[in-house]
Amino acid sequence: MTTGTTLDDYTDRYARRMRGMTASEIRALFSVANRPEVVSLAGGSPYVAALPLDAVGAMLGALGSTHGATTLQYGIGQGDPTLRERICDVMTLSGIDVTNGASPDDVVVTVGGQQAIDLTSRVFLDPGDVVLAEGPSYVGALGVFRAAEADVVHVPMDDEGLIPAALSEAIAAVTKAGKRAKFLYTVPAHQNPAGVTLPDGRRDEILSICQAAGLLIVEDDPYGLLGFDGETVPAFRSRTRDGVIYVSTFSKTFAPGLRVGWILAPHAVREKLVIASEAQILCPSAFAQATVAAYFETMPWQQQLKTFREVYRERRDVALAALHDLMPAGTRWTIPSGGFYIWLTLPDGLHSKDMLPRAIAERVAYVPGTGFYADGTGSAHLRLCYSFPPPDRVREGVRRLAAVIEQEFALRSAFGVSAGASRPGAVTWTSGNAGPRSSRTADAPGPETP
Amino acid sequence: MTTGTTLDDYTDRYARRMRGMTASEIRALFSVANRPEVVSLAGGSPYVAALPLDAVGAMLGALGSTHGATTLQYGIGQGDPTLRERICDVMTLSGIDVTNGASPDDVVVTVGGQQAIDLTSRVFLDPGDVVLAEGPSYVGALGVFRAAEADVVHVPMDDEGLIPAALSEAIAAVTKAGKRAKFLYTVPAHQNPAGVTLPDGRRDEILSICQAAGLLIVEDDPYGLLGFDGETVPAFRSRTRDGVIYVSTFSKTFAPGLRVGWILAPHAVREKLVIASEAQILCPSAFAQATVAAYFETMPWQQQLKTFREVYRERRDVALAALHDLMPAGTRWTIPSGGFYIWLTLPDGLHSKDMLPRAIAERVAYVPGTGFYADGTGSAHLRLCYSFPPPDRVREGVRRLAAVIEQEFALRSAFGVSAGASRPGAVTWTSGNAGPRSSRTADAPGPETP
Repeated sequence: MTTGTTLDDYTDRYARRMRGMTASEIRALFSVANRPEVVSLAGGSPYVAALPLDAVGAMLGALGSTHGATTLQYGIGQGDPTLRERICDVMTLSGIDVTNGASPDDVVVTVGGQQAIDLTSRVFLDPGDVVLAEGPSYVGALGVFRAAEADVVHVPMDDEGLIPAALSEAIAAVTKAGKRAKFLYTVPAHQNPAGVTLPDGRRDEILSICQAAGLLIVEDDPYGLLGFDGETVPAFRSRTRDGVIYVSTFSKTFAPGLRVGWILAPHAVREKLVIASEAQILCPSAFAQATVAAYFETMPWQQQLKTFREVYRERRDVALAALHDLMPAGTRWTIPSGGFYIWLTLPDGLHSKDMLPRAIAERVAYVPGTGFYADGTGSAHLRLCYSFPPPDRVREGVRRLAAVIEQEFALRSAFGVSAGASRPGAVTWTSGNAGPRSSRTADAPGPETP
Repeated sequence: MTTGTTLDDYTDRYARRMRGMTASEIRALFSVANRPEVVSLAGGSPYVAALPLDAVGAMLGALGSTHGATTLQYGIGQGDPTLRERICDVMTLSGIDVTNGASPDDVVVTVGGQQAIDLTSRVFLDPGDVVLAEGPSYVGALGVFRAAEADVVHVPMDDEGLIPAALSEAIAAVTKAGKRAKFLYTVPAHQNPAGVTLPDGRRDEILSICQAAGLLIVEDDPYGLLGFDGETVPAFRSRTRDGVIYVSTFSKTFAPGLRVGWILAPHAVREKLVIASEAQILCPSAFAQATVAAYFETMPWQQQLKTFREVYRERRDVALAALHDLMPAGTRWTIPSGGFYIWLTLPDGLHSKDMLPRAIAERVAYVPGTGFYADGTGSAHLRLCYSFPPPDRVREGVRRLAAVIEQEFALRSAFGVSAGASRPGAVTWTSGNAGPRSSRTADAPGPETP
């Protein structure tokens, strides 16, 4: 209960889905974590200050003064045709193009990647349906699946992402349990939160498994163009015309404050998505869409993408060096080749959620691993995001976190294991259980954590 | 089926709710209606060209160049605190203020009024729940209720809006049928589509009926500040602290292209709405919110509101004069005291949806009345929107429509009643049936019709 002493007269009137949708226990902590003295390695915010803000401002001004009669007006539900063409331009960098049937006609513009995932779920998920997802998986997607009253089955990962054999096992277990998996939700590139990327061969393998099982793939690709070597592994969608719903956003490659994302879907599905979106938001913002279209039409966006990669690579390097220099023995972490995130595994017996208040008292914030599992496991892990703080602050944040882990470890050695620590099945980050689980207990810290 | 010859391989995978969500038959017609030679009296678009676009452009530019690091970044799920204060300022004009407990803390910023209605439905509606709504009612809200698999029960109206006795009867009928009404959805001021306004005394009466029945009111108020005499009847929410969820938007008072609306809800409900919104869109656009906040902080918005009222009053006057001068006998219409809409009743036996292709061939568009009833009735009516075309075009549109009605009437006299015309219960616009009905057949023409 987050309503304190307020009497909730509406309790018996809420829809059933609201039972599973409660504010996170750690939410209150995050309002503290936004204070300037705290180094936040929590929220997945891009470093938008790296944009040429004067030029962007001039562009925004002209869109209002010269084109206001259309940019400030209603648009159409599917989204602006010009922007949908620019979206197709951007997708070619991920191997998605006319040769595999991509067309502006099959693009639906959304309110960021979040609405893209939500719409896909609205179109496909009935209560009780199963969604297969990486373990750990994006916290915002887990929130959508919870709202859809779907059951999430996590599929274990290793340093190369989702493990194909584990996917086959999970599909078999779901079938055996008499349940129906509607789709595999995956972030194949620079995954949130694990920071790992599915290599080329493994993508083919996973696609074959899904095609053989008749399982749709929902490919969520916010970070695909943010590989530090500048290379992009071709998307699932580039390998097949059918069976993949491709979802992405301009939040990481341009600006999250505009809330513009998209879905590329098979034509019949696209129809349904547009109808669902109209029922939800009528139409996406004409002004935001005109802004994104103008940015990708008139500004050096490929050069800017390079700048973003360089900014994030430097911060990743600083984070990894600091982890190497400062973390106590028994702590492990992934090595991201792009994107925003490092997935850290604590020394045995430590519990990332229990440790968070102490970390925030020591002026460093992260997201506990429990937020990324639908079933409340993941307490041995935490997500570090290096994209927003300047390099020296990233290093300082890791230093503070290392000190907190050492203190916790010392406390644990002196007084024994704390109550919440070392839950079964949560010791290593590849330990996800492939059996169906409840998805009602995740610790979504709120929107400051995309 | 709108998918033509495309094989829909996904049919057996869609969620159950999608069965009721199909593209409208009249949708294709509306793409034609957007051609410049057609006078569209269909879409509910405000006349945004009446805004001081140069000043708005300068404001937008500064928000990007000077404040881009925050306006282009993620925000929080509930919405920007500064904007929530400005929203409270605006609501005081409708009588909603601190004396009745309104607070920025209980405001949730949404993606236009549409998301506000959708979120409210997500929080309260399970499949099979009943929503009471005016007959006719806003097409976009009917789309939300359909997506929620709720049953809409229409309550008849007259020239002063919802009829209190009919509301009591409808509540009794729903209870008798063993169903549960979760809320009354109402647009009390300058209603969409009927153009009528609930007077002060009737609002008190309706509030008493709802309170006695324990029925929530969802008050949708996009047009409340657009009364042509400049007076605003105090909102339902101003009469009670509890039992009313107030929903509105800046789409009609500033700019729909920004997609900014809001909900003012009792505190416990507000918590749920924020969680539901985060699952849907993560957070509303920081840039759009900063734009609206700056507009209401730095620009003469009350003067602009007066300008909008004058623009719309002139067009209303032209429309009413043209209707009076040109419409054939047997045609009736409402006299709006504000807002965008006139509700027109055709001469006996004519069918507004059947007549639409002919009207578009004659270069005039409207929305058939069937779109505003959940059960496909309403064929004797149509909605005319006078807000967007210049006065001479409004007059020309009415002239063309009058000619079409005369032709239809002549055809009907020559060849007898057409198949679809004169359905039982659809002859007058106060003839809504208060019994529970299916809500699967509405003709939503799409987002060009807010």
